Amino acid sequence: MPSAVHDETTTVVATEVPGPISQEKIAALNKVFDARAVHFVVDYSKSHDNYIVDVDGNKYLDVYSQIASIPVGYNNPTLIAAAQSPQMISALVNRPAIGNFPCENWSTVLSQGLLRVAPKGHDRLFTAQSGSEANELAYKAAFMHYQRQRRGEGVEWTDHEIESCLVNSAPGSPDLSILSFKNSFHGRGFGSLSTTRSKAVHKLDIPSFNWPQATFPSLKYPLEDNVEANRASEKASLDEVEEVIKSWPSPVAAVIVEPIQSEGGDNHASPAFFQGLRALTEKYGVMLIVDEVQTGFGATGKFWGHEHWQLETPPDMVTFSKKAQTAGYFFGNERLIPDKAYRQFNTWIGDPARAILANAVIDEILNRHLVEQTAQIGEKLYTALADLATRHPDQIRNLRGKGQGTYIAFDTVNSAALVKKMKSLGVNIGTCGKDTVRLRPMLIFEESMIPKLVSTFDKALTSVV
Amino acid sequence: MPSAVHDETTTVVATEVPGPISQEKIAALNKVFDARAVHFVVDYSKSHDNYIVDVDGNKYLDVYSQIASIPVGYNNPTLIAAAQSPQMISALVNRPAIGNFPCENWSTVLSQGLLRVAPKGHDRLFTAQSGSEANELAYKAAFMHYQRQRRGEGVEWTDHEIESCLVNSAPGSPDLSILSFKNSFHGRGFGSLSTTRSKAVHKLDIPSFNWPQATFPSLKYPLEDNVEANRASEKASLDEVEEVIKSWPSPVAAVIVEPIQSEGGDNHASPAFFQGLRALTEKYGVMLIVDEVQTGFGATGKFWGHEHWQLETPPDMVTFSKKAQTAGYFFGNERLIPDKAYRQFNTWIGDPARAILANAVIDEILNRHLVEQTAQIGEKLYTALADLATRHPDQIRNLRGKGQGTYIAFDTVNSAALVKKMKSLGVNIGTCGKDTVRLRPMLIFEESMIPKLVSTFDKALTSVV
Repeated sequence: MPSAVHDETTTVVATEVPGPISQEKIAALNKVFDARAVHFVVDYSKSHDNYIVDVDGNKYLDVYSQIASIPVGYNNPTLIAAAQSPQMISALVNRPAIGNFPCENWSTVLSQGLLRVAPKGHDRLFTAQSGSEANELAYKAAFMHYQRQRRGEGVEWTDHEIESCLVNSAPGSPDLSILSFKNSFHGRGFGSLSTTRSKAVHKLDIPSFNWPQATFPSLKYPLEDNVEANRASEKASLDEVEEVIKSWPSPVAAVIVEPIQSEGGDNHASPAFFQGLRALTEKYGVMLIVDEVQTGFGATGKFWGHEHWQLETPPDMVTFSKKAQTAGYFFGNERLIPDKAYRQFNTWIGDPARAILANAVIDEILNRHLVEQTAQIGEKLYTALADLATRHPDQIRNLRGKGQGTYIAFDTVNSAALVKKMKSLGVNIGTCGKDTVRLRPMLIFEESMIPKLVSTFDKALTSVV
Repeated sequence: MPSAVHDETTTVVATEVPGPISQEKIAALNKVFDARAVHFVVDYSKSHDNYIVDVDGNKYLDVYSQIASIPVGYNNPTLIAAAQSPQMISALVNRPAIGNFPCENWSTVLSQGLLRVAPKGHDRLFTAQSGSEANELAYKAAFMHYQRQRRGEGVEWTDHEIESCLVNSAPGSPDLSILSFKNSFHGRGFGSLSTTRSKAVHKLDIPSFNWPQATFPSLKYPLEDNVEANRASEKASLDEVEEVIKSWPSPVAAVIVEPIQSEGGDNHASPAFFQGLRALTEKYGVMLIVDEVQTGFGATGKFWGHEHWQLETPPDMVTFSKKAQTAGYFFGNERLIPDKAYRQFNTWIGDPARAILANAVIDEILNRHLVEQTAQIGEKLYTALADLATRHPDQIRNLRGKGQGTYIAFDTVNSAALVKKMKSLGVNIGTCGKDTVRLRPMLIFEESMIPKLVSTFDKALTSVV
């Protein structure tokens, strides 16, 4: 059927990847900007929906989505309309110091925007510019809250606290900590990086706070055949969390956890584990921060990944970025608002232009029922991959993400080779952890694309054996 | 002349500030977002050029400019055109993970944009999203460079380094430091905040790295009457820097300094001081990072504040944000590119939409010769304020910023009361330090506005005595 060549869902890769034009542009870019990590250079004007087109004219089905950060497709018309709106133009050219001089619609941008999708129990937010910054702002809120409790409500700062903080010493700069999990990724700032535990390339040579980690559960697959072992792994992890909270030399002000450890290898845990973690943090008066930078905004088949846990008490803070196209954290506890103004503050405090875009993303998600669609298509995609795994048992191991929308991953033998081969066959896909392939399609990924994706895996797996 | 009422340069404040509509909107906002620091709520659609209009219809001459971050006026036509351009729409709706999948024009956006104004000796840059992040990225570059030198060129990471960094321990997470100056402000992240020394409200309760500070020179005014004392203050400061570098328990990888300490009170030092600082950092193999987040982009009458120093060896890194409308750091030394890809990396690595806007800002600055204009008008403004100071000697003390464009400040008795009064008289202006009034007009501030500004000071100073 020759017309298929012109079908807008037909992928084509006619050059090596990156192609010659990409290579030329990478070389030019590399003279002024570190371009060593560039996969290929993109012609975004030709990219559309689930398809990304490079400057050599190659067209790929994109299930990596700018490291899981494109929510509703390239050149989405709703987003384009938002980008062309008078409020967007104003937000771009009149960028406010939003804490001092907010635009007249800031309150409605938030309340009719991000707050529409606030996690249960959360009715306030603080905006930021990246997931890393969002996590750090949440840590700061946790530390201020911890000290406020310690100091006593309404008790004024002492001169000693005020003077000592200016020289980075206790008691003004207290020795408090955030507990994170082994293999977690929470960002690259000095605070967030101190909680990131994924790879040496992220951390080496950078001074870190002496903050603790605990082991994240290590589930065995298939889950139904490993119930006892997995339960034991989760219990051991919770026991370790409790032990660390009780024994770490500096008090633990908060625990941060990803619903699914993403950069660290798509590591899952059960709702029971997270319920246990919530119970432990409540028991010890430690804040629970859920990092939904990658899991948030629908890809797990719920709007927020932590909705799968059915918690009785909501997490204290939930951070977001990536598919939200803006960043920040939600919270519900008024006492997380610092005792004085200007403590949680910076010049821009997020970007209203990106918050306006977030609203358009949310419109698309809600109007098109994309979370529900992702849940349904995820089931079918998982089933198809499970079937494929029976034909490539050595190369598709520990398939995971059942019931988690399209947030599906598996371990393989040589993930770099597989992903390279996939690109040459017209699928742009990413890795994580050690040798894990992670699927991060957009929320507009359609059932009709499953055969293309699965057959490409089949070919690629056959060829890279 | 009744028509003057309709003159677009006529300010009018007909309500208290904030006015009733602002107050209503602040109350609404405060339910979902910490709005305690809001001065007034802005109608950006009515704001133009140097004038900001609030939702109550009050119109102010704005010499605070969103905490020094509006470069070329509200609703600037060149910026509006950039905001409406196809490349902007694409950058907004197809936000790339710029390190992996850059847009085809990213190289030219940089080379024909920000690199046009790169500081002397700097031909590369790394993009970021805020001044705080820019400084942290510069610190990371300095730390990686320090360890690379220590390790030896081409020497691979050891297993011990790799394993220890994942648990935040030496040698992988080394105990290295950044030296900053007392009263400095370098941002609010955990790393940047560890170098910020301005106010307790910025730092209290937040864990900090045990990094050193040195005393910044404390110049006496008028400069011509205090030559010896000021020279001695600068020498003492440099001696202290040297002593700290030699004796601090953790090696100092970099010194960071603002050309004019801004949040800390508009504290200046002479070119000789900065030449001495450059010499010292070279002597000890310590990187010199110049934080131009507030001084950069023309307000001092040079494009970069550090151009006033006439250094023989350029600083190692120069960070920027605010008026650039995007953020990042420039550098010239190839060895500041990490030894491997993905070490200096994050999902978005800046925002191409904001980089496109930066180019429009630069176009405006260069085409309209706004740096030169700012230098000239600054001289006249300084002269007018010096004259005013003779009439209010107790309330305008230590007038400073002569020869530094419009980057002018003075100490007063009650800066909060003065600024409040100024607002009621139609001038929006900011403070810094303890009781310092800082002028931060935009680069399009015109000579014709000097009489309005000075006469308003005169009235306000008379009334708040």
